[in-house]
Amino acid sequence: MPANQQIILDNRPQGVATVGNFKLITTDTPALADGQVLVKHHYLSLDPYMRGRMNDSKSYAAAQPLGEVMIGGTVGEVVESKHPRFKVGDPVVGMGGWQQYSVVDATQPAALRKVDTTHVPLSYYLGAVGMPGVTAWYGLVKIINPKAGETVVVSAATGAVGSAFGALAKARGCRVVGIAGGPAKCTYAVDELGFDACIDHRQHPDMYSLAKALKQACPNGIDGHFENVGGMILDAVLLRMNAFGRIAVCGMIAGYDGAPLPLANPALILMNRLKIEGFIVSEHMEVWPEALAELGLLVATGKLRPRETVAQGLENAPEAFLGLLKGKNVGKQLVRM
Amino acid sequence: MPANQQIILDNRPQGVATVGNFKLITTDTPALADGQVLVKHHYLSLDPYMRGRMNDSKSYAAAQPLGEVMIGGTVGEVVESKHPRFKVGDPVVGMGGWQQYSVVDATQPAALRKVDTTHVPLSYYLGAVGMPGVTAWYGLVKIINPKAGETVVVSAATGAVGSAFGALAKARGCRVVGIAGGPAKCTYAVDELGFDACIDHRQHPDMYSLAKALKQACPNGIDGHFENVGGMILDAVLLRMNAFGRIAVCGMIAGYDGAPLPLANPALILMNRLKIEGFIVSEHMEVWPEALAELGLLVATGKLRPRETVAQGLENAPEAFLGLLKGKNVGKQLVRM
Repeated sequence: MPANQQIILDNRPQGVATVGNFKLITTDTPALADGQVLVKHHYLSLDPYMRGRMNDSKSYAAAQPLGEVMIGGTVGEVVESKHPRFKVGDPVVGMGGWQQYSVVDATQPAALRKVDTTHVPLSYYLGAVGMPGVTAWYGLVKIINPKAGETVVVSAATGAVGSAFGALAKARGCRVVGIAGGPAKCTYAVDELGFDACIDHRQHPDMYSLAKALKQACPNGIDGHFENVGGMILDAVLLRMNAFGRIAVCGMIAGYDGAPLPLANPALILMNRLKIEGFIVSEHMEVWPEALAELGLLVATGKLRPRETVAQGLENAPEAFLGLLKGKNVGKQLVRM
Repeated sequence: MPANQQIILDNRPQGVATVGNFKLITTDTPALADGQVLVKHHYLSLDPYMRGRMNDSKSYAAAQPLGEVMIGGTVGEVVESKHPRFKVGDPVVGMGGWQQYSVVDATQPAALRKVDTTHVPLSYYLGAVGMPGVTAWYGLVKIINPKAGETVVVSAATGAVGSAFGALAKARGCRVVGIAGGPAKCTYAVDELGFDACIDHRQHPDMYSLAKALKQACPNGIDGHFENVGGMILDAVLLRMNAFGRIAVCGMIAGYDGAPLPLANPALILMNRLKIEGFIVSEHMEVWPEALAELGLLVATGKLRPRETVAQGLENAPEAFLGLLKGKNVGKQLVRM
């Protein structure tokens, strides 16, 4: 029974989240009951959705309870098993949370999934071949549903979702334009991720300036947009959407702290007969096998090899998480344990 | 060749539209060429979309050219025909414009349609069994697609679109809640149009007050919404939408004059996984036969018998139109000639 470092939510943010909202504690891992598996985590996934869970307000997901281990996706290996399908050494992915070990009831469907690390690095099951990858797939395939030759745009382009979106859209013959923060990310998007163009939103003080840059990068207008951010970026994209354009709304990170961000010109929804749809990928489990198969193939064939930003040690997870919210990471933000 | 009174767009509105934007002129009706039909208009339809056409800005439809007869739907009778399918006395519906007579090239498909006035009054082909009725049908059936027992809301509930929406939604077993301006319209919606409830938005100074009234009228939340207005009404409805709700955006009348109206809290699209879709019914001609058949049956069986507001004489069309934009009409706004 190894000692288990854990990070709990100690108190809720008043406005901007801080490291003081979290607390590191140490507990013992309990003895296993029948059907349970003890997993040692190698990587913890940090994701923007966690910020929403820290609030007590109405949202699509239940609030993270105070005093409990922060929710989070994990990959690791089985170190003890009382379930016949899992044996010591199996690489597995699950929702182990912000801690070094988790005890999983493996009799629950989908609680723990064995993965193949022959062609796909273990950590990628938290990113390109995990929840972020499937998120990109759902928004692109099920909402935007682009034809070859159409132009699609994604905000937070170099993040785990955005980079998968880029590869999936290129595979469908689209022109893919990213929006990211800073010249380094934009260079990375074009040179390594295969985007046709990438716009640095930090160069643009308002939506009209950003819309002008979008016009240059999207000479035929925008047919599909995957929104990870909201605010000025969505306002600018709306100004360049073509008739019958589709917008998948996956994130509104800019609005989590403080007051809601308005949408400047909703009349464009009517003028351009747009379809806008919000979704969360965990409500669409039926698409995961198809999506993961395509994403795994893109990774195995070298068409999707995004960078990762890896913090060392569970104790550094809160700071890495706050950095993620400010866009300091490049690619998937992980914590290595 | 009778003299033909016509109303042309003389100049474009600077902000609010006025009667001074229009001009009444008299011309001669030309002699008919082969395939042409001369129609004497009995009724002209006045519709909110016309306000958008008066602007020169980018919109879903071409701007109304200056100096030309204002666009508009008309019903009337054939008074002269050089086309074998039409004979003198036939009741017909078309897009004759703001004038007493129109010359129609009947060889063009769908330019002129003969109608049956046995069970449906002629004027209804401009309202409940015309473009407004089909608009309601498309938004309800193709975008909202409600199940029996779901709650649907419509703004401008007593207008031509709203009243048809109410009857169509009741026929599908929905709870139907209207939003309208003033107590008289609300009483009319419930007592005559069959709405389950109707909220007077003039009683509510802000979206939170209106959202509270919606909560009372929609105890199970809102599953579908048909938006004819925008602004505060859409903001309030968004606060009460259920998860996976659908919003059909048909009109943004509140934003036509002056600056765009922002949407207060677009993050709700994500939180409640909403689908929002703008449409204009003339782009969906494939649904018209099915929609008109259902609407005609509802009228013929007495389930849809909305009131009309009828201005007398073409010269009064501009004032009646400006009244429509202010919500002075009850039900379909027509001009009798």
